[in-house]
Amino acid sequence: MDLEISPLAPETFPEMSFINGVRMATAKTGNKYKGRPDLLLIDLVSGTSVAGVLTKSAAPGHPVIWCRDKLPKGKARALIVNAGNANVFNGKSGMQAVDTIAKSVSGLLHCAKNEVYMASTGVIGEMLDPSGIIEKIATLGNDLQNQNWKDAAIAITTTDTFPKGAHRIIKIGKTKINLVGIAKGSGMIAPDMATMLGFIFTDAQIPAQILQKLLTRNVKSTFNSITVDGDTSTSDTLLFFATGTADHPHPSHDLDPILKEFEKGLNEVMLDLATQIVRDGEGAQKFIKIKVSGASSVASARRIGMSIANSPLVKTAIAGEDANWGRVVMAVGKSGEKADRDKMSVCFGGIKIAENGGVVDNYDEEPVTKHMQGQEVTLDVDVGVGRGVATVWTCDLTHGYIRINADYRS
Amino acid sequence: MDLEISPLAPETFPEMSFINGVRMATAKTGNKYKGRPDLLLIDLVSGTSVAGVLTKSAAPGHPVIWCRDKLPKGKARALIVNAGNANVFNGKSGMQAVDTIAKSVSGLLHCAKNEVYMASTGVIGEMLDPSGIIEKIATLGNDLQNQNWKDAAIAITTTDTFPKGAHRIIKIGKTKINLVGIAKGSGMIAPDMATMLGFIFTDAQIPAQILQKLLTRNVKSTFNSITVDGDTSTSDTLLFFATGTADHPHPSHDLDPILKEFEKGLNEVMLDLATQIVRDGEGAQKFIKIKVSGASSVASARRIGMSIANSPLVKTAIAGEDANWGRVVMAVGKSGEKADRDKMSVCFGGIKIAENGGVVDNYDEEPVTKHMQGQEVTLDVDVGVGRGVATVWTCDLTHGYIRINADYRS
Repeated sequence: MDLEISPLAPETFPEMSFINGVRMATAKTGNKYKGRPDLLLIDLVSGTSVAGVLTKSAAPGHPVIWCRDKLPKGKARALIVNAGNANVFNGKSGMQAVDTIAKSVSGLLHCAKNEVYMASTGVIGEMLDPSGIIEKIATLGNDLQNQNWKDAAIAITTTDTFPKGAHRIIKIGKTKINLVGIAKGSGMIAPDMATMLGFIFTDAQIPAQILQKLLTRNVKSTFNSITVDGDTSTSDTLLFFATGTADHPHPSHDLDPILKEFEKGLNEVMLDLATQIVRDGEGAQKFIKIKVSGASSVASARRIGMSIANSPLVKTAIAGEDANWGRVVMAVGKSGEKADRDKMSVCFGGIKIAENGGVVDNYDEEPVTKHMQGQEVTLDVDVGVGRGVATVWTCDLTHGYIRINADYRS
Repeated sequence: MDLEISPLAPETFPEMSFINGVRMATAKTGNKYKGRPDLLLIDLVSGTSVAGVLTKSAAPGHPVIWCRDKLPKGKARALIVNAGNANVFNGKSGMQAVDTIAKSVSGLLHCAKNEVYMASTGVIGEMLDPSGIIEKIATLGNDLQNQNWKDAAIAITTTDTFPKGAHRIIKIGKTKINLVGIAKGSGMIAPDMATMLGFIFTDAQIPAQILQKLLTRNVKSTFNSITVDGDTSTSDTLLFFATGTADHPHPSHDLDPILKEFEKGLNEVMLDLATQIVRDGEGAQKFIKIKVSGASSVASARRIGMSIANSPLVKTAIAGEDANWGRVVMAVGKSGEKADRDKMSVCFGGIKIAENGGVVDNYDEEPVTKHMQGQEVTLDVDVGVGRGVATVWTCDLTHGYIRINADYRS
């Protein structure tokens, strides 16, 4: 199935920074996709620390289990990613394939097997024959070179309609630090696909424990605040590598003021990548930002936001350019969170349509209609019980989603 | 928008029993729907007991609040239902409309206002002007007559494509007892509609407290085990009236063996109505029965079943006639419930496709393909951790759903 580039895609892939200590290469195994790279190998300088956040699915993929097992050590020398087969639900053979691939990479790069990180994306439940990947790993060794982030971002895609990258340059002390990230995902996802992957790199020198705290803290307001269809992947993987090649004052803990700018930059890279995934949501025609305020806590505000963002009735209403606040009220109501119906307010495009538990008499429909016709829709909901605020991002639900997931047999 | 009758609709409306103590009439207010009844009044004989289960939404409709307030008394003399406006999120005017309508019915039937039950279904958030309904209530008084259940079932529909009724005749002791129910719902639901309503009647003589226990106990495995799109209504209302006109030995409590057959019949009527709502799911082309076994508890099995039934990727796969067990595994994984990935098994149409955490080698695809092409799809999933079993029912997700909810502006 040929997919057109999402109408919500950024105009170009960004000019990315150079991260000292990172070499990479891509290859075409031809296993599933023809004429495009589907295998990415990244070589990380000795001393690189790593942090990660992995799917909470009770049926995680084999590479997820592998990474979860290695992360406590906090050391990485390589990342290998294949697209086309997610290596999920494959029993013992699935774990064996992971082990075989890790062994091959460790042989090539002369590092410990435990320092090889891995992610796979694509079909769930089909056996992954590692031989095609192993064969390419040898040639990848010769190709390892300086960074081509766009190629890397392309190599990890499945049914994405555009490659996703983001970067920021910030400072720790007086030292310029680079943050670069790539990601893939387009829903959870197209025919038989089910993976969101994200990889972030920095040249900063930050121990794994601090790296992990920064990543975990910022994932809530970024990757965990987006949804396309509410279907959680078996393979969600977000890894953060710090090569430590930059020279700067060392942070003593995760809340050290010296890391303030770094954490802000990290959050921006994560949010940039996360919202690019929403912009590539299956069938998406509109990018939707939902801000919930007045909730009993931030967590409650986020759950209400996700209840709205996952409601097929809200998503189809927005696809139909209908500022249907009745459906928004329904979605708040079903969230199970505290809300005061008689104090609730709803704005589309910043224009208040409902407040104090009822529609605003004679609100100006024209600017609302115009806003709904655009590609970016904002929805603000105040639920009138407290001070909790959170923002989530999603896309609309259109015929495109059904076409991608139902009309074509896998 | 004209909707075609669902391909999953029963062939005819059932021949319903007569319930002594029930009189009814319908009227056309012309408020929203033209040329069809949209108002139902039911007169219940003095001494009728009532039980009810109402939406758990934090933003319930005004009639729901009214019913919740009256139910503890357990006595009913009337039921009035209007279709076209759900009277939800209308502030003080919403409660005033409810009060005005109840007062008018109580005047007509010479009963207490507190014994008038009410439900409204249709648009959320538009003011309900009660004058059209009040005007018709007077004429309904003259029309009250013996039972026409099909007319009653039609009068409470919104975008349903067929009226829904079910009945059973059972015995308490040696006395023949009638159970009759009507319901409406077609998703949660079509443009701006958001309501599931169900009303069950019996001539048995059962105190309200026992009636309530029977209803609550049986709602879990029936109405609470169906889903069309996962969107919970602000107006879900299920009421159970017992006129007490039949003469039979009195049950002493809700588990009295004398009620065994009655409870079985009640469960059947509830399940019959509930599955008819699924068969009228917006855009539904396939009726899906999902049985989950091997869960840590019945409640866990039901939550896993609902996670599968609400997954847009599973629903679109079935729409595409694809026995996509990878998506089923994903939905089990995201449920947050206990499951042993390496013991899991998945059957479509009774044929085992996956077991012990992997696909079954060389399973016979032909009967599976044939099963997926039919209108009734069965899915059995064993999650391998315990003895909890539950069944849930849903429909597929098709272009019809998007057409109904996005393509037409409200």
